[in-house]
Amino acid sequence: MSTVLVLNGPNLGRLGTREPAVYGSATLDDLRAQLVADAPELTVDLRQTDDEGVMLGWLHAAVDERTPVILNAGAWTHYSYALQDAVSMVTKAGIPVVEVHISNPHAREEFRHTSVLTPVVTGVIAGFGFESYRLALAYIRRNAL
Amino acid sequence: MSTVLVLNGPNLGRLGTREPAVYGSATLDDLRAQLVADAPELTVDLRQTDDEGVMLGWLHAAVDERTPVILNAGAWTHYSYALQDAVSMVTKAGIPVVEVHISNPHAREEFRHTSVLTPVVTGVIAGFGFESYRLALAYIRRNAL
Amino acid sequence: MSTVLVLNGPNLGRLGTREPAVYGSATLDDLRAQLVADAPELTVDLRQTDDEGVMLGWLHAAVDERTPVILNAGAWTHYSYALQDAVSMVTKAGIPVVEVHISNPHAREEFRHTSVLTPVVTGVIAGFGFESYRLALAYIRRNAL
Amino acid sequence: MSTVLVLNGPNLGRLGTREPAVYGSATLDDLRAQLVADAPELTVDLRQTDDEGVMLGWLHAAVDERTPVILNAGAWTHYSYALQDAVSMVTKAGIPVVEVHISNPHAREEFRHTSVLTPVVTGVIAGFGFESYRLALAYIRRNAL
Amino acid sequence: MSTVLVLNGPNLGRLGTREPAVYGSATLDDLRAQLVADAPELTVDLRQTDDEGVMLGWLHAAVDERTPVILNAGAWTHYSYALQDAVSMVTKAGIPVVEVHISNPHAREEFRHTSVLTPVVTGVIAGFGFESYRLALAYIRRNAL
Amino acid sequence: MSTVLVLNGPNLGRLGTREPAVYGSATLDDLRAQLVADAPELTVDLRQTDDEGVMLGWLHAAVDERTPVILNAGAWTHYSYALQDAVSMVTKAGIPVVEVHISNPHAREEFRHTSVLTPVVTGVIAGFGFESYRLALAYIRRNAL
Amino acid sequence: MSTVLVLNGPNLGRLGTREPAVYGSATLDDLRAQLVADAPELTVDLRQTDDEGVMLGWLHAAVDERTPVILNAGAWTHYSYALQDAVSMVTKAGIPVVEVHISNPHAREEFRHTSVLTPVVTGVIAGFGFESYRLALAYIRRNAL
Amino acid sequence: MSTVLVLNGPNLGRLGTREPAVYGSATLDDLRAQLVADAPELTVDLRQTDDEGVMLGWLHAAVDERTPVILNAGAWTHYSYALQDAVSMVTKAGIPVVEVHISNPHAREEFRHTSVLTPVVTGVIAGFGFESYRLALAYIRRNAL
Amino acid sequence: MSTVLVLNGPNLGRLGTREPAVYGSATLDDLRAQLVADAPELTVDLRQTDDEGVMLGWLHAAVDERTPVILNAGAWTHYSYALQDAVSMVTKAGIPVVEVHISNPHAREEFRHTSVLTPVVTGVIAGFGFESYRLALAYIRRNAL
Amino acid sequence: MSTVLVLNGPNLGRLGTREPAVYGSATLDDLRAQLVADAPELTVDLRQTDDEGVMLGWLHAAVDERTPVILNAGAWTHYSYALQDAVSMVTKAGIPVVEVHISNPHAREEFRHTSVLTPVVTGVIAGFGFESYRLALAYIRRNAL
Amino acid sequence: MSTVLVLNGPNLGRLGTREPAVYGSATLDDLRAQLVADAPELTVDLRQTDDEGVMLGWLHAAVDERTPVILNAGAWTHYSYALQDAVSMVTKAGIPVVEVHISNPHAREEFRHTSVLTPVVTGVIAGFGFESYRLALAYIRRNAL
Amino acid sequence: MSTVLVLNGPNLGRLGTREPAVYGSATLDDLRAQLVADAPELTVDLRQTDDEGVMLGWLHAAVDERTPVILNAGAWTHYSYALQDAVSMVTKAGIPVVEVHISNPHAREEFRHTSVLTPVVTGVIAGFGFESYRLALAYIRRNAL
Repeated sequence: MSTVLVLNGPNLGRLGTREPAVYGSATLDDLRAQLVADAPELTVDLRQTDDEGVMLGWLHAAVDERTPVILNAGAWTHYSYALQDAVSMVTKAGIPVVEVHISNPHAREEFRHTSVLTPVVTGVIAGFGFESYRLALAYIRRNAL
Repeated sequence: MSTVLVLNGPNLGRLGTREPAVYGSATLDDLRAQLVADAPELTVDLRQTDDEGVMLGWLHAAVDERTPVILNAGAWTHYSYALQDAVSMVTKAGIPVVEVHISNPHAREEFRHTSVLTPVVTGVIAGFGFESYRLALAYIRRNAL
Repeated sequence: MSTVLVLNGPNLGRLGTREPAVYGSATLDDLRAQLVADAPELTVDLRQTDDEGVMLGWLHAAVDERTPVILNAGAWTHYSYALQDAVSMVTKAGIPVVEVHISNPHAREEFRHTSVLTPVVTGVIAGFGFESYRLALAYIRRNAL
Repeated sequence: MSTVLVLNGPNLGRLGTREPAVYGSATLDDLRAQLVADAPELTVDLRQTDDEGVMLGWLHAAVDERTPVILNAGAWTHYSYALQDAVSMVTKAGIPVVEVHISNPHAREEFRHTSVLTPVVTGVIAGFGFESYRLALAYIRRNAL
Repeated sequence: MSTVLVLNGPNLGRLGTREPAVYGSATLDDLRAQLVADAPELTVDLRQTDDEGVMLGWLHAAVDERTPVILNAGAWTHYSYALQDAVSMVTKAGIPVVEVHISNPHAREEFRHTSVLTPVVTGVIAGFGFESYRLALAYIRRNAL
Repeated sequence: MSTVLVLNGPNLGRLGTREPAVYGSATLDDLRAQLVADAPELTVDLRQTDDEGVMLGWLHAAVDERTPVILNAGAWTHYSYALQDAVSMVTKAGIPVVEVHISNPHAREEFRHTSVLTPVVTGVIAGFGFESYRLALAYIRRNAL
Repeated sequence: MSTVLVLNGPNLGRLGTREPAVYGSATLDDLRAQLVADAPELTVDLRQTDDEGVMLGWLHAAVDERTPVILNAGAWTHYSYALQDAVSMVTKAGIPVVEVHISNPHAREEFRHTSVLTPVVTGVIAGFGFESYRLALAYIRRNAL
Repeated sequence: MSTVLVLNGPNLGRLGTREPAVYGSATLDDLRAQLVADAPELTVDLRQTDDEGVMLGWLHAAVDERTPVILNAGAWTHYSYALQDAVSMVTKAGIPVVEVHISNPHAREEFRHTSVLTPVVTGVIAGFGFESYRLALAYIRRNAL
Repeated sequence: MSTVLVLNGPNLGRLGTREPAVYGSATLDDLRAQLVADAPELTVDLRQTDDEGVMLGWLHAAVDERTPVILNAGAWTHYSYALQDAVSMVTKAGIPVVEVHISNPHAREEFRHTSVLTPVVTGVIAGFGFESYRLALAYIRRNAL
Repeated sequence: MSTVLVLNGPNLGRLGTREPAVYGSATLDDLRAQLVADAPELTVDLRQTDDEGVMLGWLHAAVDERTPVILNAGAWTHYSYALQDAVSMVTKAGIPVVEVHISNPHAREEFRHTSVLTPVVTGVIAGFGFESYRLALAYIRRNAL
Repeated sequence: MSTVLVLNGPNLGRLGTREPAVYGSATLDDLRAQLVADAPELTVDLRQTDDEGVMLGWLHAAVDERTPVILNAGAWTHYSYALQDAVSMVTKAGIPVVEVHISNPHAREEFRHTSVLTPVVTGVIAGFGFESYRLALAYIRRNAL
Repeated sequence: MSTVLVLNGPNLGRLGTREPAVYGSATLDDLRAQLVADAPELTVDLRQTDDEGVMLGWLHAAVDERTPVILNAGAWTHYSYALQDAVSMVTKAGIPVVEVHISNPHAREEFRHTSVLTPVVTGVIAGFGFESYRLALAYIRRNAL
């Protein structure tokens, strides 16, 4: 069975407790269940880390194993050029990386308008809550596997 | 039958002839056919205009008729505050507007990194070719009708 | 009877429906009635367009017919240098153009702090709701006819 | 009889001598006479000071006595955040402050394009010579007393 | 007979009346007569519009009919990325577009120093009055037909 | 008995009336009473002025009398380089100046993020309401007397 | 017994060896001893990490256990938006976070003038050496426990 | 006997005590004595104020009495547009104003590189200690009396 | 016979060897031959220098001898204000200076988008290869001799 | 035997697989072998980590053990002020840190033109592939051991 | 006899012919005569060059011969860091360099507001025509010889 | 015997006398001797000029003779785009140009942080005193001859 990596960055393990008005009250476990239900033919491997080095390692492995990636990098989105380099390795190898955001960053603080990842990802989906992940998964099922 | 507006801005009538390396060789007619096939239960009303006033009128009507909108505003995306005002009227009325882009604007010229529409839309989908529209339609089918 | 042009730009036809908390619930027809009542000795010619080309034509005619202008250019205020050129033709011909705004643009989003028209108009009146137009009309009655 | 404060900031006591080509040759006394004639039912209390502390005190009193204010802050307009704070106290108390300018600041030097007061005033009237004050008074008579 | 398009943007229909000190007192008709006289072997098709959508259509047709273009986009030069996209389609098809200006924009206001068209045109000729058009025509006659 | 100067700048005499949601409803007299109670062994000399020249004089005297200073400069914080020069004279003489703010300026408008005083003070305490003054006093009691 | 977290970021474990002229020669152990002596009724839990992920985890736990936080984030102060998000979760839950700095960042290099944490903390204390921590602790003892 | 005004702004009364390494240890009285000795045929009227309003009044009087001015505006140099307006009235009346600085502002902090006065003064002399005043006086003696 | 100066700045002596893809493979000698052929009734005096002082001298002589100038200043275009001053002397004397560029600077690196010469020249012709010089010569023949 | 630390930051473990056109196809093991061969009298201790905290620890140890450092910080170069602080501790202790880059960052994307490390290192060597490390080693052998 | 160097940069040999409204109609020879008359006890060595390398050589010699310098660097003032380095060598050797300008650069174009020399000179005198040189000479006679 | 050009720009002839604390007390002759000793198999041709035109000529010759270049351009590094163009010709011809600096420009004034040469050179070595040249020579010996 093919695998899709659904990688989540810093603080996203707090989903469901953090500002529910912005992010909703569902948790990453709820999200995993939804994505598994959406794509029964795939292994949906959803992970979260607060550690940049761990995230880099997951992306390096995605290159080696040629696994498509759905990536919500949280606040790293706005300044981690190390992450940009790692994402770039994935897409330059011809493997899709879909950048997702739960809320619409452009409707929030100024610094959230900048994504250092966007120039190197396949595409971006932002603003639809957990639907952002589901649409990303739909894209990957239709185009990348 | 419910309607979804798929509105396209300046120069997008040239799709299929304009820089196929960036935008693909399919036309808006091809796109319409795909979207109609995707959503047989809906009226997919795909339009294109090079005239800002006409686009504003379509958005005003979307408010009155409460029609969800998929919007590719082309180059107006980057400077038309008049369009921002009109889009804002739609979303403030509780009707979704999904901003779509065929290519990933952040991977192109600097001025394409700014969207004056993003702060007022429901969400953004960019970089997936015609798939951007299809994902937007999937979102609307599941959430807005 | 002398004429005063009261020209309104994009989206202003939606007054009364658009964000009443910001713009009030009265319509352009209400405004016209008020201005007509204020200046019974004048022809108050109030118009609205979403089409930049049409607005330019009205301003060109104002030069030829030497008609004073009250102008609410809506969002074009912030970027339409074409409109600046046309307004400049009117004031350089010695005919007053009063820039009006219903709300106070400096109390809103950053981009609304810039007006490309202000450097070439006779004066500006902003922040008083429909009173902005009435004060502009009072100025023109006392000084320009 | 109700009172309207007409407060003038630094160097405005020199009106009539300072650059008549820009500001006209009439003096503040001429202006006071005009405003008194315009509003016989009101006490028009026109003052001028070159001392920021004095101006702040006048605005504090306007809050306590709930007096509407017409304010030409001269060059302080462009940098005195102390004045912004004081003006803000007046308008937050529900009392109108109308910012006026004799000339059109946007048609002059770059630094005059910025007003630190505009974000907190009720509205702005600029560019009409002494008429700017008269229109402000007309607004207050109709709306604030 | 080959055709050359000479396209003029907003407010340029006012040539001859607008600020003669800057733009001269001759009209577009005078210009057309001069260009026709310069190039008797060609059809010189000189047009003007205040409507951005119309201009876009003319440029689209230039691609289809492979017609060289002399373009004075007026104030759109400084902000219309829609026009940039359309011009880019012409030059990417191998058809020359010569950007012309009657006056020298760099000797005027700051905003006129930026041209969003220049990066995508064949070349620029600015500052020579109607001679700017004549030199553009000379270039096209020698190189593009 | 040693003295501590507690100097307050423009509009701070309005504490208790100005925006209580931001600044609380207690007055400078309440603050003085609290500080006197906190430091019975000291003369707490709390003053307020709206006049920059007066504030400068107080700081000059602080140098001559070697009195520690707790300073809330209000809006002058953001632009008064004259005040910076005077504060610098105090700290360069080895006398502490503690900059205090009732609210957290970085959680408010952009211009409040800049303090021209901070580079020359001993330290800054901001965001704790009147507690900001009390902590400053605690520091001075322990370190500067 | 209530607990207060005293969290220290990157390189702060080197206190006592790093640039004593700027930071003093005392170590974190000295600091812990001082704080324990100051607040015998509390558990002062002082920690240090060079690992951003570990710091995020400590802040997440502070939310769950409702522990007040004194935070010296070292150089992360200037760019770690991930830390900003985590701090924001604490203060939005109504638990105080006091940002402290040993030296006065505004008296040092330009990049140290920006704190991405300040907009979301309860308050800031900077410039007093280890006294900054002691004052923060005094605030928490009086207000947050 | 003709008069020359030598006007000094905020904190300059502290000369001789303030940072002698930068400003020297001589006082304004020493300076006055030197200037009187330099120009026995003139009344050298040297004054100092920390109050912006007082300085404005002195400049207004300089216009009325047509007195040349040597001006060291201290820190006001960098932001007081009110002072700029007053200085401009003097020089527009054909009376010289020489801006002087004891130290070289461009060799100090960044904000001291900007002078809002320089665009409207007759000339500038900076960096020569009290010699700056003496050279200014030499200029006025030779050219303005 | 009248003379036209065709002045070329740094590195332009390398034409024909430098990046032929950008500048073509023809040399300055080829250009001279072409221009001589174009204007047999004139002395075309084409020169090149890598020495700014020499170029300044040529422009000074152009003023004295009232010779029209075609100027390709190479990289000096982007920063040599000394050259701007010299060019300004020529055009202020009523003698045309036509700025030419072989390639279109706006289609190249960012720094090439700025020309310090453009504000003071008669006009600009850029992007047409050696045709840029030929069009400049055509302009001078028709208008300046 | 003396030791030299050769520290490599995020993603550099991927050398040999990542974009060989930019970075070459050799691996860190190849590099270690080369450096060992170059400096047989030294212990060349080459390490790589994707974890910022680990890198900080290595630099802290370099201070304690007084080991010279060759540092390729990868993307951290552009934003990690935490790393800057740690590097600064090494060089302030009189131990050399040579910043190396395989490619020339100024010939790549804009953000790679900024190094937050450069102000605190001994020197920089960039653009020579693995030779950058070898030259750094040559420097250290000759000057630091 | 002691020598004073009076060094003039690009285009200044044209004084008397260049824009007399700005620079006056007197020539450098007139200036030399005036300075010689002012300082009969000195050798006034006035020179001019359009060649940056020559100017650098003169400044190098000033160091070796310890000659005070009066320097009008013309347009180089605004960008020649090579000149800044050379001037810095003179003043760091304890020899005065007085920067002079005939007109007041801050009353002219924006780029003339920046002087790269000012941070390293002894002082600046600007705006007094040839008097600027005379005052500089007076300073040197009194202080540097 | 192969040749290596070691080219030095403005003021570098003063090495040994200029600020020895920054640049050391050795001269260019000392440097030449060291480099000759380092590379006995090569002709090390070390030159210095204060004249930009001369430097350009040397670089042009380097292209024709295919000579590797070690370049210390001094202050030209920061603004001479003419030099950038010339250097670019060398490296585009496949001949290495190594940019060297004696001191670390990023540890000095702000303007020294920008090098207009870096984008077009082979690599950069900065901060090692004369060792910078020696490392550059080592690179060339191993890779370019």
